[in-house]
Amino acid sequence: MKITGTFLDEITHDIPSQNWGPDEWRRDFDAMQQVGIDTVILIRAGYRNRATFDSDVLNGHRDMLPAYTDLVDLFLTEAGMRDMNFFFGTYDAGTFWDEGDYRTEVAINKNFCAEVVDRYGDRDAFAGWYISHEINAYDEDQMVVYEELADHLRGLKDVPILMSPYIRGPKQFGEEALGLAEHVATWEQVFARIQDHVDIVAFQDGNVALTDLPRYLEANRKLAARYGLTSWSNVETFDRDVHIQFPPIDFRKLRYKIEQATAANVDKLITFEFSHFLSPNADHPAARRLHQRYREWIEG
Amino acid sequence: MKITGTFLDEITHDIPSQNWGPDEWRRDFDAMQQVGIDTVILIRAGYRNRATFDSDVLNGHRDMLPAYTDLVDLFLTEAGMRDMNFFFGTYDAGTFWDEGDYRTEVAINKNFCAEVVDRYGDRDAFAGWYISHEINAYDEDQMVVYEELADHLRGLKDVPILMSPYIRGPKQFGEEALGLAEHVATWEQVFARIQDHVDIVAFQDGNVALTDLPRYLEANRKLAARYGLTSWSNVETFDRDVHIQFPPIDFRKLRYKIEQATAANVDKLITFEFSHFLSPNADHPAARRLHQRYREWIEG
Amino acid sequence: MKITGTFLDEITHDIPSQNWGPDEWRRDFDAMQQVGIDTVILIRAGYRNRATFDSDVLNGHRDMLPAYTDLVDLFLTEAGMRDMNFFFGTYDAGTFWDEGDYRTEVAINKNFCAEVVDRYGDRDAFAGWYISHEINAYDEDQMVVYEELADHLRGLKDVPILMSPYIRGPKQFGEEALGLAEHVATWEQVFARIQDHVDIVAFQDGNVALTDLPRYLEANRKLAARYGLTSWSNVETFDRDVHIQFPPIDFRKLRYKIEQATAANVDKLITFEFSHFLSPNADHPAARRLHQRYREWIEG
Repeated sequence: MKITGTFLDEITHDIPSQNWGPDEWRRDFDAMQQVGIDTVILIRAGYRNRATFDSDVLNGHRDMLPAYTDLVDLFLTEAGMRDMNFFFGTYDAGTFWDEGDYRTEVAINKNFCAEVVDRYGDRDAFAGWYISHEINAYDEDQMVVYEELADHLRGLKDVPILMSPYIRGPKQFGEEALGLAEHVATWEQVFARIQDHVDIVAFQDGNVALTDLPRYLEANRKLAARYGLTSWSNVETFDRDVHIQFPPIDFRKLRYKIEQATAANVDKLITFEFSHFLSPNADHPAARRLHQRYREWIEG
Repeated sequence: MKITGTFLDEITHDIPSQNWGPDEWRRDFDAMQQVGIDTVILIRAGYRNRATFDSDVLNGHRDMLPAYTDLVDLFLTEAGMRDMNFFFGTYDAGTFWDEGDYRTEVAINKNFCAEVVDRYGDRDAFAGWYISHEINAYDEDQMVVYEELADHLRGLKDVPILMSPYIRGPKQFGEEALGLAEHVATWEQVFARIQDHVDIVAFQDGNVALTDLPRYLEANRKLAARYGLTSWSNVETFDRDVHIQFPPIDFRKLRYKIEQATAANVDKLITFEFSHFLSPNADHPAARRLHQRYREWIEG
Repeated sequence: MKITGTFLDEITHDIPSQNWGPDEWRRDFDAMQQVGIDTVILIRAGYRNRATFDSDVLNGHRDMLPAYTDLVDLFLTEAGMRDMNFFFGTYDAGTFWDEGDYRTEVAINKNFCAEVVDRYGDRDAFAGWYISHEINAYDEDQMVVYEELADHLRGLKDVPILMSPYIRGPKQFGEEALGLAEHVATWEQVFARIQDHVDIVAFQDGNVALTDLPRYLEANRKLAARYGLTSWSNVETFDRDVHIQFPPIDFRKLRYKIEQATAANVDKLITFEFSHFLSPNADHPAARRLHQRYREWIEG
């Protein structure tokens, strides 16, 4: 298997901007196509005061920075020209993280996504929704976000809904990490609750020790299958093991993770994300080398 | 408005060295000139045991590392050939930060700046002083540094004196940040005290949420005007919003900050700083792209 | 003096991978040779679940990631073709750091190093052992690691044994740092204990203030001489003084450290490490410039 999907991280949370304009993006969509990427996922349409386009809904809701370039239009156009599927990531107002206020998140997104469908709903490449609020365990309030928002999105445009949760693993949570059994138990709860609201689940694969990953991949695939969800693996191409947050991953780790996801029989591999960490056009020279190593390997 | 001034950060506090020699600096002064930079500000002539030239005063005062290259001479020469104004940043002994000992800071700088005027005072480009001790609020001891040092500098060479304070904003101070009213109140105190000692104030623009920036820019300009000070804005070209400290800023943020500073009617835009973050010669590919985006925009 | 040895950091603890394949390594060995490097030291043959080759011993002991490429073979081959000396760095199981369990470290390494000698012991370039467990002071348990392991290594292949400790200095330990007298006292203890087990000691030179370094270099050389050990200096080429961990060092600091190590009469200069921080092929543009500055100086 190879990686056939990537996030587009242009309203970024913690990854430095590469300051690309339309020409650089075009060139990178070409590079994606060349390695077989057929799916692009907008990581989020907006985050707090920043957005990928000048949205009337968001501007009406709070002070926003100007978007200057309509990135949704740009990405839909580039994806459309290459027969790629584009998944639209919802807006993250930040209120859930700051104040546990999920009501605002849902309320804004309902109006905002209606605006999105109004503006972009008829574009060929618009093939899915991505709910951008990442979760790692069962949480009542977050379930409501997923339920209400997913129902609303489905009503606006009936295309597959993707989520990409993370494992409450030791690399991020240290001693508060969940073990495999606890992980499975809490996700049984999650999927029992949202199985009719979400279609595809792509667990991030970077939060547990690499040598524990096979067990998690296997468990996650079975878990998803039990609830009728499609399994993708989000094969992270950045490295969580070093001081600098975050450089491209060591190719040996990437290859191992892809081999294990393949062995676990997931349906598709996507990555966070191509343009910074796996692209021949990335700023990091190590990403350009990762691209080279990856190409040598998949072209074998 | 465009950015017409930049700091030169070669005795750096926390930005990695690019290891440039005279040739690389020459090339970068060319690049500065090409985008209309007419003012360069040495961020500090020395910091603890490092200095921009081998100073008899500093060597007499403590163990210093050799300078190897006289950067003050190099910068004055390059600035002079291009009719740029050079502001000389004072020495930071570190004793104020470590022990609250401002007496040493003032005492060393008096002798040191006399040596500076002796060595470089007649150079054409020597157009101003920059007091490198950054402050964010009223502090009695720091006021004395500013008063005594500024008087002394004025006596050595009567050229404009610049300061570039930071806002005690949430990006650096979290819950201990000052609100706008508190910020204005404390800076009323500062300016009432040092209005006759300093000529230009260039607040750093990166410490508050971007969408709050317009109010701060406006308040700062009015504040400065009330005390007869010239207002510049220090439009930071590095990004404070990501894990890595620090990459070049996202162009969208830079453009927004320049637009807002223009709307607030400041007299000049400077930046910290061109060579690492906005230059076509910078190490960061994202800085080279920022340069491209910035050029496209100012050249319209 | 110039730098004639370098570590090879390919099972890295905290430095991002450059994702080099055999071609990139070959090119970098050429670059090393060009600046006079005659000694390469594998920083560690493995770390926890990662290894430089697929070892039967390690695979029998725990879950390991595949190595994919045999780096020990690659490095021995490239070193051999250039008449370089290769020092083999032992495996770090992580159990000592995690649980104070040094028994496991010693036990695994005994079997592992036997496998190493079996596989690579007859290679021309195999010229030394490097005990990869870094220490900074006397510690009874660590002494046992050094004693037992060194005896065992000597029995497997009788070549010089190198260690590269760090100073318990203020850059890493703040207020818990040792002063020079305490440093000397604890290292008297260490060397009294392991003088017959280790042949060469290369203290890392980046943990104390640069202007204190001359005193430490002098003390360390005398200390080693008193116990019949050869003194090398590990002239670090990365910068410990900035937020980003870690960029290439400022050339001025590197030059100063080399000048001081030369003045202290050490026998050889090695560095951690060439390929990321001092190479014309490194990812960091600042490393490539450091290479240039260094070449200008040594060829000067």
